[in-house]
Amino acid sequence: MFRNRMPRYEILSAEAMATLDGGWRRILTEIGVEFMDERALELFRAAGQKVEDNTVFLDPEFVLAQVAKAPREFDVQARNPVNNVHIGGDAMAFAAVYGPPFVREGETRRDATMADFRNFSRLAQSFPVLDSAGGVICEPNDTPLDSRHLDMTLALLTETDKVFMGNVVSAVNARDVLAMCDIVFGSREAIEKTPATISLINCNSPLHWDDRMLESMFEYVAAGQPVILTPFLLMGAMSPVTVPAALVQQIAEALSGIALAQLIRPGAPVVFGSFLSNIDMQSGSPTFGTPESGIGLLCTGQIARRFGLPFRTGGGLTSSQVPDAQAGYEALMTMLPTFLAGANWVMHAAGWLEGGLVSGYEKFIVDTEILQMLEAEFTPLEIDEASLAFDAHQEVGHGGHFLGAAHTMERFRTCFYRPMLSSSENFERWTRGGGLDTAARAGSIYRTKLEEFSPPALDDGVRQELEEFVTRRRKELGD
Amino acid sequence: MFRNRMPRYEILSAEAMATLDGGWRRILTEIGVEFMDERALELFRAAGQKVEDNTVFLDPEFVLAQVAKAPREFDVQARNPVNNVHIGGDAMAFAAVYGPPFVREGETRRDATMADFRNFSRLAQSFPVLDSAGGVICEPNDTPLDSRHLDMTLALLTETDKVFMGNVVSAVNARDVLAMCDIVFGSREAIEKTPATISLINCNSPLHWDDRMLESMFEYVAAGQPVILTPFLLMGAMSPVTVPAALVQQIAEALSGIALAQLIRPGAPVVFGSFLSNIDMQSGSPTFGTPESGIGLLCTGQIARRFGLPFRTGGGLTSSQVPDAQAGYEALMTMLPTFLAGANWVMHAAGWLEGGLVSGYEKFIVDTEILQMLEAEFTPLEIDEASLAFDAHQEVGHGGHFLGAAHTMERFRTCFYRPMLSSSENFERWTRGGGLDTAARAGSIYRTKLEEFSPPALDDGVRQELEEFVTRRRKELGD
Repeated sequence: MFRNRMPRYEILSAEAMATLDGGWRRILTEIGVEFMDERALELFRAAGQKVEDNTVFLDPEFVLAQVAKAPREFDVQARNPVNNVHIGGDAMAFAAVYGPPFVREGETRRDATMADFRNFSRLAQSFPVLDSAGGVICEPNDTPLDSRHLDMTLALLTETDKVFMGNVVSAVNARDVLAMCDIVFGSREAIEKTPATISLINCNSPLHWDDRMLESMFEYVAAGQPVILTPFLLMGAMSPVTVPAALVQQIAEALSGIALAQLIRPGAPVVFGSFLSNIDMQSGSPTFGTPESGIGLLCTGQIARRFGLPFRTGGGLTSSQVPDAQAGYEALMTMLPTFLAGANWVMHAAGWLEGGLVSGYEKFIVDTEILQMLEAEFTPLEIDEASLAFDAHQEVGHGGHFLGAAHTMERFRTCFYRPMLSSSENFERWTRGGGLDTAARAGSIYRTKLEEFSPPALDDGVRQELEEFVTRRRKELGD
Repeated sequence: MFRNRMPRYEILSAEAMATLDGGWRRILTEIGVEFMDERALELFRAAGQKVEDNTVFLDPEFVLAQVAKAPREFDVQARNPVNNVHIGGDAMAFAAVYGPPFVREGETRRDATMADFRNFSRLAQSFPVLDSAGGVICEPNDTPLDSRHLDMTLALLTETDKVFMGNVVSAVNARDVLAMCDIVFGSREAIEKTPATISLINCNSPLHWDDRMLESMFEYVAAGQPVILTPFLLMGAMSPVTVPAALVQQIAEALSGIALAQLIRPGAPVVFGSFLSNIDMQSGSPTFGTPESGIGLLCTGQIARRFGLPFRTGGGLTSSQVPDAQAGYEALMTMLPTFLAGANWVMHAAGWLEGGLVSGYEKFIVDTEILQMLEAEFTPLEIDEASLAFDAHQEVGHGGHFLGAAHTMERFRTCFYRPMLSSSENFERWTRGGGLDTAARAGSIYRTKLEEFSPPALDDGVRQELEEFVTRRRKELGD
């Protein structure tokens, strides 16, 4: 997995940090956070926090004491140990898009199916730059709602051998996912020792944790599986229209969720989550890859480090309907700051299109190329005498060229990033090749990857046990 | 013009800087630099430098003493003082693409004409985010070669009232440009007091300054007009294949040119230039928007600041043949580091396509949107109590929305960057509108801008004098 050993780009002064610090403390103290789960309220009450109806008024020092119990870094195991991930520190893990009900391939936009889900899982498996297919890589709308989590989890555990994200629709679903982990990793003990899944718990911002998310969270945290506590902030809708306000709300929400996690299971692995963009104030549409989201992202990294927490943010976000120029620049407008901030868990890193409503096949390839480029860019230079190539200058002299220099010949295979998707063909050659734009070339790449795909090895017994579990549970759920 | 008040992103350690420092010194001392101009050789000889044939072996301390004579910052006046630019410090000036022989509009790629040159000048004039149309915004292939500089300079001085770049094909051309500046700005004295044009002097890398560039440079520098001394480095061809080697070569070349400028006219305004990318080692094609160029760019800023010099780098560079996803992400892959580095003079900031062979109409609009977004992103946050919007939280409470909150209503017009080109329309609305991708929307924007264009005011007497000068000189040049 990728280790980002480049400096972090930090833009908040100590004074700004102090102002933000006052902000989240005031929100937790005076406005409080709603938790729509009796067990949560009882835990907070028992810990001495003021609870009125569903609102918990949190003492900031109590919250910080809980946050301090969370590990700064932790591992998540994949069913192929080569693909284990480390979360925190300088590690960056990348997962595919999460949640879209639609897919786009070429000119076609349609409902996502289970076949698409498998395809995207296979694509995520095919590219080493991705550490995870994520969870709901698209919504398989042709499968029954009640048992869909079984199909998705089975696909994530068979089409990939990378880390995967747990279903969070209900406690029932979470328990099923955990049971499937038990099968694959041998026992509950094994996954409590090193977590085997990581789950996204979104806040229903502002300042409200809903019952479904909380009941899923209880299951995963109790089993020692990490959760990503993520305020869902589109400025103008779920938060005020200023970045500083969104940041303090984000801190208040994320820390309140993390505090609950530590009450459920002290020392539980957690991730400070951020999903922060804004709406278009004319239309109310969500917008992505915006300057405001880029700024928010940079600040989020600095803030999470201050709390000593691994953090999730970033992705290849865009509002664009198709994988065009806008999709390219907006994806990078989020992804480059993601690297500058050193985000530890990056969802939506490949395939996000149309504000997250669409999993785009071509966009998946565009994003993968961007990730590969950024990993090359964020690898520190080796600067030593040999790298200065004085001998090459002696060889080439004035006005010559370095194509055949010994220094070049020794390094030419690996000296530069080799694009997978980008073209630098001259116009004549490009035209002879059909004059294909990036989206068309991306289409050809993902089709080839899918044709070449062979599923990662899996023990027959484990596979059978998984399939039997899915069959049995599907029946029990009435599908 | 834009002032970048965000922190600089610097990635070179003190140790790395020391290694690079040894590198350029060794190149200048042991390999030297070729200057294909007798006057240049004579100036170096007179200043005590060792000259053999056309090669000057430079004492690094002598070079640094010359560099120290250059101003850290200076102004360039535009014929409309509102558009004067400052070069250096936290100022960033943006100029359009420079040099392409071809243009692309929609599906058509063809030879550039004088009509295109005027069109692009008008587009540069139309967008406040651009400080200059640049110089050779495209090559007007339908005009005679000998007098083309007159047509271009006339267009730059009539279709725009912004700063413009001087022609550098020959001393004759440079003198004509200066004469036209004398007409517009009143006298040679006026432009010697505050420069009225800025010119690109490229090194014929490695380590060779050719005669044409040098003779142009002599004219401009003698007249007190700034020059941008730019090593032209495509790693693998004009420099070794390692970034550190390219950086030390870049320092050696740029400083050697700057030293010459200071010998011609001590205190001459100069810019440390960088044009640093790499070739594809399979095909030999130049590639742009690469990870290596991004790294080089960040280092270049840090290096130029060390020498106390304003610097040029960056742009909306791409190898893509069309304004597609690759064009979007590659342009930003260069332009975001351009802002992180705080480049002072940014050429190719709008319209660059197909490795600089094409001035793209649609790409011009894509780049302009990117510039506008980045200026918003690189504007420091105001973080104070009001920005925290505590009152909005009190008003909205838990699980509500901020659309109608008083804090939102007071700020909704200006709180977020408003896209000119990017679309966040929902799929149904976007489809009803024709399902136009970014390139198609960009086409509509530039056509509207050209239709709406009216030339900036210019004194009739000045215009007549300019036109008479062009007519007379064209005759004298035999066209």
